[in-house]
Amino acid sequence: MMNNQQYPSLLLQKAVNEMSRLPGIGSKTALRLVLHMLRQDVVEVDSLAQSITELRHGVRYCQVCHNICDSEHCSICSSPNRDRSMVCVVENVQDVMAIENTQQYKGLYHVLGGIISPMDGIGPADLEIQSLVERVEAGGIKEVILALSPTMEGDTTNFYIYRKIRDTGVRVTVIARGVAQNDELQYTDEVTLGRALVGRTLFG
Amino acid sequence: MMNNQQYPSLLLQKAVNEMSRLPGIGSKTALRLVLHMLRQDVVEVDSLAQSITELRHGVRYCQVCHNICDSEHCSICSSPNRDRSMVCVVENVQDVMAIENTQQYKGLYHVLGGIISPMDGIGPADLEIQSLVERVEAGGIKEVILALSPTMEGDTTNFYIYRKIRDTGVRVTVIARGVAQNDELQYTDEVTLGRALVGRTLFG
Repeated sequence: MMNNQQYPSLLLQKAVNEMSRLPGIGSKTALRLVLHMLRQDVVEVDSLAQSITELRHGVRYCQVCHNICDSEHCSICSSPNRDRSMVCVVENVQDVMAIENTQQYKGLYHVLGGIISPMDGIGPADLEIQSLVERVEAGGIKEVILALSPTMEGDTTNFYIYRKIRDTGVRVTVIARGVAQNDELQYTDEVTLGRALVGRTLFG
Repeated sequence: MMNNQQYPSLLLQKAVNEMSRLPGIGSKTALRLVLHMLRQDVVEVDSLAQSITELRHGVRYCQVCHNICDSEHCSICSSPNRDRSMVCVVENVQDVMAIENTQQYKGLYHVLGGIISPMDGIGPADLEIQSLVERVEAGGIKEVILALSPTMEGDTTNFYIYRKIRDTGVRVTVIARGVAQNDELQYTDEVTLGRALVGRTLFG
């Protein structure tokens, strides 16, 4: 790999080092990005740096669903057009965006901020699970949809949440698992295919 | 692709848009990087933004070789240990770093800042060719090593430079082309292999 001492400029070296601390950005990519910035107008580079600083200092999290937002409540929680009786539990902000993109869901969300993962030292107390329980106990919610990753950690978290809220009488559902659209059956892994058979639904 | 309107925060959307203007960074990668920054300490994110701003405002180019540097002359041009009679002509800063990493070269450099490429609208006047000619004419340089890309554009630029400086009597050389170390012969392209045969050297 490239030796740090061979950067021709300390400013360059510092910027490359900072950029290469981002996930998935190695020192060669960081150098390429930084040299690209040097060819851009000062205004553009300042705008990039400013947008990062402003985001980090100005970002807020919705007090209800913990989604990222610019004010006290996110646009989904404060929208009059959403069904307030349904709450979809997701791991992170990207999942909210992915579900919103389907345009198939008109309820509210609850962003856990992660998933129970003993291997990574993440327990229930590190996640927004207690605030979910309180939301459900406060009443008005009829259905909680669990939309976590179809993994061991997702299953664990699903079960933990279920146990916490089943006594409230709320309906707890989980998103369907099965073969993905346009996947070829012969290349589908056996666990997925097995579950798809067990979980078959009436046709038509 | 993701619709801009679905970002839950304007600050987030702005930062993602800015990041995704960098080469090779799509909107999904930009979102991943930006959400990573949100999980970092404010100090670290400020440090990243500051390093970019400081680089863009503070960067200088060596008045002799046009390499990136922090002062009037780069560390190579101002080093007493370099052979001032040799100048290696390269396309960009990364090429200087790559050659320095070989530890096989103790002369000076001349960074063109690009390569002649009519398709991209880059002509000789857009590059540091005139300043190279002036360096050579000023005397003291015995050899100019052309180390541009082994492409049509590189060949064109090599030939242009050669015509400009051949009358000064300076020795003009070009880095060797042939089969790359550890490449398998059967997978080497025919142009490279053909040139390697034509350009064969005495063994031992």
